[in-house]
Amino acid sequence: MLIRHTGDYTWEDVPVLAYKEENLTCFKSVTRQVLINAVPQLPCQLRYFEVAPGGYSTLEKHEHVHFVVIFHGEGRALIDGKVHTVKEKDVIFIPSLTWHQFRAGEDSPLGFLCLVAEDRDRPVLPTSEDLTVLRENSSIADFIRS
Amino acid sequence: MLIRHTGDYTWEDVPVLAYKEENLTCFKSVTRQVLINAVPQLPCQLRYFEVAPGGYSTLEKHEHVHFVVIFHGEGRALIDGKVHTVKEKDVIFIPSLTWHQFRAGEDSPLGFLCLVAEDRDRPVLPTSEDLTVLRENSSIADFIRS
Repeated sequence: MLIRHTGDYTWEDVPVLAYKEENLTCFKSVTRQVLINAVPQLPCQLRYFEVAPGGYSTLEKHEHVHFVVIFHGEGRALIDGKVHTVKEKDVIFIPSLTWHQFRAGEDSPLGFLCLVAEDRDRPVLPTSEDLTVLRENSSIADFIRS
Repeated sequence: MLIRHTGDYTWEDVPVLAYKEENLTCFKSVTRQVLINAVPQLPCQLRYFEVAPGGYSTLEKHEHVHFVVIFHGEGRALIDGKVHTVKEKDVIFIPSLTWHQFRAGEDSPLGFLCLVAEDRDRPVLPTSEDLTVLRENSSIADFIRS
């Protein structure tokens, strides 16, 4: 089964979806494409997310982990208590229960492949207490959007 | 955990390995890098394979499936009974028990991300009977190397 790239980070017969099905969380300018759905032998889903310039994903944590490959452009990411510059072909493992957020550059999109288990818990959003703790680190305080 | 791309399709602290641990199967000019190892929450391994120009992976099949993303260059692949031209950003699902083989272009490497379950069966190589059947299709006969 070949899912052809049709140019500009879209694929044949793969719809470009809203980032989240529920619009209750805080994010900006993110799209989602499901490239490969889970099968019994590999109960994982491969998705491609693209954050437009100036946009950001939700600041969240969860039990499930992510395997991420930066696929397009560059930006920054909060991973494991630090803000990192990330660029094409960097690979990221996001451990359980760690706050994470992706932000595209001001002039660059940030597109990434993201693998998750099909059976996974729902993300948790930060409480005001969580945000207070996160903001004790000034580089994180400057970075996060919530 | 950030695994930085250090240029030319190698990553920080990721060794470039031989394609197969056992050198009994038929392949040519292929390297392997394990980018992310399995964890309990996602018992999968993310690898990057690179086939040098003129090289090819093993013609094989197995119960386990592959999620593949072409990441570098171009070539051809036997997938699900057909030979396809594949290029950067194409996505491939290789179903259970289907013969598959990747060949780089004569002048282009073929690099791809490949996701597998940690717990998986060993590949099966074609018997001479299998090869006879595969070669009934002339485009497959011209393509396969074994």
